[in-house]
Amino acid sequence: RSFDKAANFAKANGFPPDTKIYGSYESLLDDPDIDAVYLPLPTSLHLKWAVLTAQKKKHLLTEKPVALSVAEFDQILKACEENRVQIMDGTMWVHNPRTHKMKQFLNDKEQFGQLRTVNSCFTFFADPDFLKNDIRVKPDLDALGALGDAGWYGIRSILWAADYELPKTVTTFRNPVLNEAGVLLECGASLLWADGKIATFHCSFLSNLTMNLTAIGTLGTLHLTDFIIPYQEHQASYTTSAKPGFNELVTGWVQLPSEHTVTVDLPQEACMVREFASLVANIKKNGAQPDKKWPTISRKTQLVLDAVKASMEKGFQPVEIVG
Amino acid sequence: RSFDKAANFAKANGFPPDTKIYGSYESLLDDPDIDAVYLPLPTSLHLKWAVLTAQKKKHLLTEKPVALSVAEFDQILKACEENRVQIMDGTMWVHNPRTHKMKQFLNDKEQFGQLRTVNSCFTFFADPDFLKNDIRVKPDLDALGALGDAGWYGIRSILWAADYELPKTVTTFRNPVLNEAGVLLECGASLLWADGKIATFHCSFLSNLTMNLTAIGTLGTLHLTDFIIPYQEHQASYTTSAKPGFNELVTGWVQLPSEHTVTVDLPQEACMVREFASLVANIKKNGAQPDKKWPTISRKTQLVLDAVKASMEKGFQPVEIVG
Repeated sequence: RSFDKAANFAKANGFPPDTKIYGSYESLLDDPDIDAVYLPLPTSLHLKWAVLTAQKKKHLLTEKPVALSVAEFDQILKACEENRVQIMDGTMWVHNPRTHKMKQFLNDKEQFGQLRTVNSCFTFFADPDFLKNDIRVKPDLDALGALGDAGWYGIRSILWAADYELPKTVTTFRNPVLNEAGVLLECGASLLWADGKIATFHCSFLSNLTMNLTAIGTLGTLHLTDFIIPYQEHQASYTTSAKPGFNELVTGWVQLPSEHTVTVDLPQEACMVREFASLVANIKKNGAQPDKKWPTISRKTQLVLDAVKASMEKGFQPVEIVG
Repeated sequence: RSFDKAANFAKANGFPPDTKIYGSYESLLDDPDIDAVYLPLPTSLHLKWAVLTAQKKKHLLTEKPVALSVAEFDQILKACEENRVQIMDGTMWVHNPRTHKMKQFLNDKEQFGQLRTVNSCFTFFADPDFLKNDIRVKPDLDALGALGDAGWYGIRSILWAADYELPKTVTTFRNPVLNEAGVLLECGASLLWADGKIATFHCSFLSNLTMNLTAIGTLGTLHLTDFIIPYQEHQASYTTSAKPGFNELVTGWVQLPSEHTVTVDLPQEACMVREFASLVANIKKNGAQPDKKWPTISRKTQLVLDAVKASMEKGFQPVEIVG
């Protein structure tokens, strides 16, 4: 937002002398050499800047949550569609090669069977400075608080496991913790599908860093404890278990879960940018249409977020999801 | 229930020739040489036989659930107290030496902080024969179904993590699965405490064998995936994580969870019997009073079970727990 700050940053970080420096978001969006924009602004600013980015025909990689509500999301999406630009949200873990391997297991009817239950938990212990000053605790910046930040990942992981089939209803747990300004610091919900599947998620700024995901099918179980940010950059693990049982005296299991380790050549954020860039290149060079998969799953995530809030407002009654 | 069957069983299994053989439960309970009884009968028979066992001054190790309701439980407890006999339920995993080590971590305010969240899941995939014939799907035998069987362990694990502090309310998830006879095959609930702690459990006969327990404090996380029956008889593991964080680029964690392995000399069922026998010996030899800890935690487990059922009957509204 300041030419001098940008110029100083470029200098301090050893950027090449021909690096373009902008003094405002507008001047950046007006540069015809720019194909795409990564939008890391607080969520409350997304609507304005995402729509303007699309109108300027720039493709859009935007931080999550994409918007404060589905209504806002749909305005952004409309602008992207009208201007034929790609939109993708910044949920990086779905681009980790581990995620693709895990999905193969979930799709394996012989090993995993039919999905029955998902439990997803993402918590971290925010320090006093975060709880006072971070944009994620400010109603005018990231008004969705822990739900929009940590909860976004949990909801996405559940939708991911359910092949992005939307739940029928969402019922929020009766324990949301809000700060004085009314921003969520902790909440959770149960999601139910028509076929009897159930999922629960819990998100919090008030508990130790934990990111567990468990998906249980009729025949198999997928489990990992670092689903959003893997413990290590260059490899990532998960465990699968398929049709285990007990020994004769029921003093042990006859088949232990197996750990699988996937080599990760690029950090998942870079995998995400690579995927985004490849879609942009395909539009730009080959005249392809923007890929609809990414906005579709972003929108479904927003729908569930909206339902969690609506259930809270309705006294924790179940809220139907209308796709 | 048949002298001939018992005699044949003793013979077929190489019991010593002087093994006492009984033809009925009554004749066993009338034997003055017997100090204590293990009651493995279906839950619906517990009230009658547990009360009679106590009246015959025999100490009582009983399968879980102890009773079909707190009201029944209290009748059993009254008989035990009036006859000064020990009662303990057959929840074996709490007697595993691993459980004591895990509790030390939860009690460590420096490493674990204050408990905020527990998630407990116990599911197994019952085969068609189980779903048709097992006592746990019969309304006249184990009428509490999956809740009384798998759910008992989940509820107990939550109470264990919470130092047996009862939750304020229980709200059952809106997805219970019942068989044609009305017996629960799957359900779950959220439990809330006055201080904002929340716990969820899920139990099912319809999903792959999974037994995950996660307890998250402000500073630490305890996690294990075999909490009821450890993977191996002679050792049992769990992981702890205390104040982890991310590396500078947030592409990995700076402190990985640690795995701890505990040597288990005796199967946990034998540890349970040893503990029970030691309490009985103390009463018999030293004139001690029956230990109140075990019936107290059994009763709390029953209270939560009752609340899960009551919430279901009240249209999944929260039910207050009155200790």
